[in-house]
Amino acid sequence: MKIFFAGSIRGGRQLIPTYQYIIRFLKYRNYTVISEHVAAEGLEKVEAKMSEQEIYEKDANWIKVCDRVIAEITVPSIGVGYEICHAVKHKKPVLCVYQDGAKASAMILGNTTGYVTAKAYSDKRQLEEILLDFLTTMNI
Amino acid sequence: MKIFFAGSIRGGRQLIPTYQYIIRFLKYRNYTVISEHVAAEGLEKVEAKMSEQEIYEKDANWIKVCDRVIAEITVPSIGVGYEICHAVKHKKPVLCVYQDGAKASAMILGNTTGYVTAKAYSDKRQLEEILLDFLTTMNI
Repeated sequence: MKIFFAGSIRGGRQLIPTYQYIIRFLKYRNYTVISEHVAAEGLEKVEAKMSEQEIYEKDANWIKVCDRVIAEITVPSIGVGYEICHAVKHKKPVLCVYQDGAKASAMILGNTTGYVTAKAYSDKRQLEEILLDFLTTMNI
Repeated sequence: MKIFFAGSIRGGRQLIPTYQYIIRFLKYRNYTVISEHVAAEGLEKVEAKMSEQEIYEKDANWIKVCDRVIAEITVPSIGVGYEICHAVKHKKPVLCVYQDGAKASAMILGNTTGYVTAKAYSDKRQLEEILLDFLTTMNI
């Protein structure tokens, strides 16, 4: 199963350790994470060598070819919001996770498309349970 | 012409004065702004009386029925990102404006759908020129 992981890049990089944790967790369980770069330190330097169009096309296409999307939405980000809607357009199940107490968007929490699930987590154990529940359930 | 204005709500309210300025500017020129509430102080209290689904449905439907979308993307926001993509899905021309120096998302700057224009502004005069240019051009 190919997972597109979405996390804030230009919106703020303070949750990189959480993004890395999620990606390691998924890879350890043999899921393919096609957007592993999101959690890479120094990503902005790598992306600076690409045109904005190249970055857009790469991410938009990865969402199109993935099986499911997992988005960490604690840090507000225009790009992550766009990617979630793009995934819905391509009928991909999307799991949005956020730290308990973070202000999640009504466009996510109230999403009625049937493709978006949003769950708050208070610790790593709960985060892992939410991820596994999403990945092992065929119909969300 | 009906305009849907998008600005950060739960992502951060620090640019409310700019949102208000844009909406006043549009209304003064007789454009109808159907999402005027985005710039209202105390909006979060009003929305607290609505369900998350009601907020989602209201915004998603307003985007569907509007003629054009103007988004202020300086403050990162999952909801605004989602709304821009939703507007593209409904083939609405979208203008994204941001303060010069702000880190705008590659999903916006590199957007190749043909519906999204992104422009930086350094002062109110430039912002007004960008808005008028978008509104008075039939084909973007």
